[in-house]
Amino acid sequence: MGSQMKNTDYQAIAAEKKAQQCDKIPQDWRIPADKFYHSAAASVMDVPLACGLLSETEARITSDYDATALLGELKAGVWSAEQVVVAFCKRAAIAQQLTNCLTEIFFDEAIARAKKLDQEYGAKLSLSRGGKPLPPLFGLPISLKDCFQVRGHDTSTGVCCFVGEPAAEHSALAALLVDLGAVLYCKTNVPQSMMTGDSDNNVFGRTLNPRNRLLTAGGSTGGEGALLALRGSILGVGTDIAGSIRIPALCNGIYGFRPSVGLVPHSGVRDLGPSGTDGVHSSAGPMATSLRDCGLFLKAVMGADAWRYDSAAVAVPWVDNVQQQQQRQPGGRKLRIGVALTDGVFTPSPPVRRGLKQAVDLLRGDSSVEVIPINLPDVELISQDLISYVTLSGSDHYYEQFARTGEPPIPSLQAGGLLSVPGTTLQVYFELNARRAAAAKKYLALFRDNDLDAILMPPAAHTALPLDLWTKATYTGLWNYLDYPAVVMPVDRVRPDVDVADDVSNAKFGPDDEQLYSLYTGPEQYEDAPVSVQLVGYRHRDEALVKVAAALDSIINKKGI
Amino acid sequence: MGSQMKNTDYQAIAAEKKAQQCDKIPQDWRIPADKFYHSAAASVMDVPLACGLLSETEARITSDYDATALLGELKAGVWSAEQVVVAFCKRAAIAQQLTNCLTEIFFDEAIARAKKLDQEYGAKLSLSRGGKPLPPLFGLPISLKDCFQVRGHDTSTGVCCFVGEPAAEHSALAALLVDLGAVLYCKTNVPQSMMTGDSDNNVFGRTLNPRNRLLTAGGSTGGEGALLALRGSILGVGTDIAGSIRIPALCNGIYGFRPSVGLVPHSGVRDLGPSGTDGVHSSAGPMATSLRDCGLFLKAVMGADAWRYDSAAVAVPWVDNVQQQQQRQPGGRKLRIGVALTDGVFTPSPPVRRGLKQAVDLLRGDSSVEVIPINLPDVELISQDLISYVTLSGSDHYYEQFARTGEPPIPSLQAGGLLSVPGTTLQVYFELNARRAAAAKKYLALFRDNDLDAILMPPAAHTALPLDLWTKATYTGLWNYLDYPAVVMPVDRVRPDVDVADDVSNAKFGPDDEQLYSLYTGPEQYEDAPVSVQLVGYRHRDEALVKVAAALDSIINKKGI
Repeated sequence: MGSQMKNTDYQAIAAEKKAQQCDKIPQDWRIPADKFYHSAAASVMDVPLACGLLSETEARITSDYDATALLGELKAGVWSAEQVVVAFCKRAAIAQQLTNCLTEIFFDEAIARAKKLDQEYGAKLSLSRGGKPLPPLFGLPISLKDCFQVRGHDTSTGVCCFVGEPAAEHSALAALLVDLGAVLYCKTNVPQSMMTGDSDNNVFGRTLNPRNRLLTAGGSTGGEGALLALRGSILGVGTDIAGSIRIPALCNGIYGFRPSVGLVPHSGVRDLGPSGTDGVHSSAGPMATSLRDCGLFLKAVMGADAWRYDSAAVAVPWVDNVQQQQQRQPGGRKLRIGVALTDGVFTPSPPVRRGLKQAVDLLRGDSSVEVIPINLPDVELISQDLISYVTLSGSDHYYEQFARTGEPPIPSLQAGGLLSVPGTTLQVYFELNARRAAAAKKYLALFRDNDLDAILMPPAAHTALPLDLWTKATYTGLWNYLDYPAVVMPVDRVRPDVDVADDVSNAKFGPDDEQLYSLYTGPEQYEDAPVSVQLVGYRHRDEALVKVAAALDSIINKKGI
Repeated sequence: MGSQMKNTDYQAIAAEKKAQQCDKIPQDWRIPADKFYHSAAASVMDVPLACGLLSETEARITSDYDATALLGELKAGVWSAEQVVVAFCKRAAIAQQLTNCLTEIFFDEAIARAKKLDQEYGAKLSLSRGGKPLPPLFGLPISLKDCFQVRGHDTSTGVCCFVGEPAAEHSALAALLVDLGAVLYCKTNVPQSMMTGDSDNNVFGRTLNPRNRLLTAGGSTGGEGALLALRGSILGVGTDIAGSIRIPALCNGIYGFRPSVGLVPHSGVRDLGPSGTDGVHSSAGPMATSLRDCGLFLKAVMGADAWRYDSAAVAVPWVDNVQQQQQRQPGGRKLRIGVALTDGVFTPSPPVRRGLKQAVDLLRGDSSVEVIPINLPDVELISQDLISYVTLSGSDHYYEQFARTGEPPIPSLQAGGLLSVPGTTLQVYFELNARRAAAAKKYLALFRDNDLDAILMPPAAHTALPLDLWTKATYTGLWNYLDYPAVVMPVDRVRPDVDVADDVSNAKFGPDDEQLYSLYTGPEQYEDAPVSVQLVGYRHRDEALVKVAAALDSIINKKGI
C-alpha cells in the first residue's frame, strides 16, 4: 500500500480500506443472514454462540475461561495455541460483523505464529512433560487498541491521512507481549482523535455496543470494549488519558485497569498531539473479563524488564511479597476503603447510585473491610485543568491532520468542545503544574490521613449513554490528572424494576449537572446497560490496587480470587 | 526573627545572620588560635583530631566508622545516641571553623532529641536486650543541604531575601528521616542560586575545600562535601540537577549518589526557579564516606513508603532480592561495564585520565567483570538542551530575588552565564522534549544492545578547580537530562610524581575544550585534589546500581562490600 500514490479524498480512502478489511474475514466466517438479529436496539450478546459458526470446541475455548484459566489450559496442553488462536480469530470476526469493533485484522499471521509456537514448544506438551520452558503468556491471544503500532499494519487510529502507512516496527508493548509468548491477531476501533467517548471515525465507522446498539460502546478504546464483551478477545490493551480504558469498560460491562503512567510501555503509540507535549500522559493498560486477568497482564509486563522496551518506562517492579504491604497489613487490619458517592460536579444517575450502594452494602457486611465516607476536593477545577493540559497546543494539529484528506470531525468530537480550546503558553503551563502539585498534596493527605487502601466511587455519573452524548469525564479524568491507578469493575446492569428515573431536581451541582442528569430517562432506553464501580489506588502502587480490587471484587461479585 | 521588621540591606542581613550563626557554636568548641593552621593552601584534614577539642571517645566515634558501622554500634548500644550526636556536633563545629561549610546550626535541638531517643529506647540497650524495636536509622546524625526545609530554621539557600523566615514544616525528606530515627543537627552551605560549582553566597560566604583551600569545595552541595570530608558528618543529603551532589563528592573525595528523580522525596526543598517549572528535575540523594552508606540511605528511604511523605515521589520499592536481577545474572555471568573515556566535549585532564585508567585496569584484571569500550552520543547537544531546560523561564526570577535586598550575583554565577540565558516558549519546550525522547531511545539502545550493567566514566573533565572556574557540567548533566542514577566514587588523588601537565594540543574537541584543558597546570596547583570516577546505571534501577557499584568499589578500592 505504502508505495502507491496516496489518495487524498477521505471517502475514497475509507472505502478502499473498508473493502480490504472486509476481505480479511474468510467467507465461511461470515454470519448467515438468517442468523443475524436485526432489531437495532436488541442485545447481540448471544449471537456468537447462536449463529452456528463456532464449533463446540471453539465455543468452549472462547466462552468458558478468563485469560488466567485459559493460559493454564494452554500451558497444560489441554488446548494448542493454534486451537485457541483460531477460535478467538473466528469469534473476533463474528464480533466485527455485529459491532464493527475491529480496525486491522491479521488472523493469518496470528494462526501462523500459533502453529510455530506449538511446534517450537511442542503442541499440547506441558512443561511437566519435559518440554522447553514456556514463556509467561504462551499462546495467549491479545487484542490491541488501534493506536499501538504493529509491524506491517496501519496505525491510522481512524484518521484517513494515516491510512496506508504500515508500521516498520512494533510498538514497545507489542514487542514485549510477543516476547512473552502472546499472539497478536487484531487491532480495535477508536474515535477520530481518540479524544471522545464514542468510537466512531471516517475510516472504519462506528463501533456499536453489543448489549444495546442504541447506546455507545464508549471510547476511546471502544472497539476493545465491544470485542471483549462478545468474547472475541480474552485480553485486550487500551490507553487512557481521561478515561479511555475505563469508559468502554463501563459501557461494555468488562474490567478495565488504567495503570500509573509508564508502568506499561507506551512508546510507539500514535498520539495525535504535537510531538513532545507534556503535562498529562496517556497510560496503557489491560481490559479483560475478570479482575485477575488485569493482574495477570500487569504482573507479566511489570515483571518483564519493561524498561528494556521503552525509554519512557517507569520501572516499578512487580513484587509478589511487598514488604511494605506486609508491614502495613498485620493480621487483623481491615482494608480501609474510602467511598465517594459523587465527584461534586455531576450527580450519579439512579442506576449508578444504586450500583454503588449495592457494592458498599456488601462491603459493609464484610468483616474484612471498613468503609470510610470521603469527599473528593476540587474536582471541577481539576477537570478544567485537565482539559487545559490535553489541549496545551490547541486544536490546530487535529484540523491539520483532518484537512489532509478533507475529512470532517465526527459528531462526538464536535459535541465535546475539545476542538475549540485555544492553546496556551509556557507560563500558563507552569501555573497548571503548580496547581496540580497543590492538588496532589491535598489528595495525598486524603489517602494518608484516612489510611486508605483505595477509593470506591462511580466511574461516571451515568451508564453508557445514547450515541454522541458523552462529553464529560470528570469521574475518570481526575485520576489521570493525579496519575493514580484506577480500575472499573462491573457490578450489575440497569434493572427495569428498580432503576426508575427521578426528578432532575436531585441534581444539585448546577445547570450542567441538571442537563446531564436529565439524560437518564429510565430503564427502557438504557436496557441492559452495565452498572460498574471504579476503584482507585495510590500512584505507582498498582500492584497493591490489584490485590485490594481482587479482595473487593470477590465480595461484591461473589467470585473467588 | 520572622516577626521583626525585615532588613532590606543585604550586608546588614548577612552580618546579623552570621553573628547568630557564630553564637550557635559553644565557646569551648572553638579552635584555639595556636592550633589553627594558617597556610591558605594547606590541607586542614588533620585539624579536627589535632586541635585537641575532641575527647578520645569523640575522636573514635567520628573517625573510625562509616554510617553503616556506626549504626550497628548505636543499635548494639556500644555508643548512646547522645554520645554520637554530641561528637558529630562538635566535629561539625570544627569543620565549620575550618571551611565555613554550615548554614543553620541546631546542635542543642539535636542533642535534646538524642537524649530523648536514648530514653525512649533505653540508652545502650540493644534490641536483643529486650528494648523496644529500634527504628532503622536509630540515633544516626544526618546533615542536610540548606535547601531542605527543617522546621524552625531558615531555608535561605544563601539568598539574603530569604533570611529570617523559619520553616513552619519539615521538608518531606526531613520528616521521613526523623521518623526513621535519624537526628538532624545542621544544614550546609550552597552557592547563591544553587546553580554553580562554587558554594559561595552573600549570606554565609564561601565554603573552602578542606584538602586544599585554593581549590573549590564544589557545588551546589559544597558545604556537605567539605563537612563529610572532615567527618563533621557521617551521612549527608544533597540535591543534583546537573551535578550538584557529584561535583562536591568529587572535589572532596567522598561518595555522592544522584538517584533517579523522585525516588528520594524532594518536596519542601527550596527551588529558586518559578513554581511549576518542568523538564529536568532536581533529585535528592546521599553523600557519604563509603559506598555502602549510599545504599544504606537509599534502602532506608525507598523502603519507607516515601510516597506517604511526598506527593511527587516515584514509588520504586527497594527489593532485596530482585527477581529480574537473579534472572539476569546467573552464576557465571560477568558484570558488563561500559567504559567511556571522554564525553566527546571536554578532554579529561591528566590526573582524571590516569584515575580512570587505573580503575579500568583493576576491573580488567578481575574475572567477574567484562569491560566494554563505548562512546557517549550527542553530549554537546544534550548539554545545550539541559541548559535550556534549567532556564526555561530565563533568569528574571533570580534577579528579582537578589534585587529585593540589593545583593550582587556571586562571581561563579556571573562566570557560568546562566544569568544571561533568555526564557523560552511552550513550542520550544515541546521541541526539547521531543529531542530528549529521541536521545533517551538512543541511550537505551546503548545500554540494552551492549547488555550493560553500568557505565564507568569520569565525573568531570577535571578535578576540583581553582575558585570560580567550574562552568561546565557536561559529564554529570548528561545523566540529569536522561534521569539515570549516577554515583561518584573516589579512586585516588593528584600525585606529584605522575600527574604532570601535558600539551593543550591533547584537547581535540575545539577551543572550549582547549581552554578548559589548559586549566590543569600540574600537580603543584592541584595538590591533594581527589581523583574520582563516575558509575552510571539505568533509570529507576538505582538498587541495581548500588549493587554493581559495591562490586566495582571493592575491586577498585580493595574494600570489602
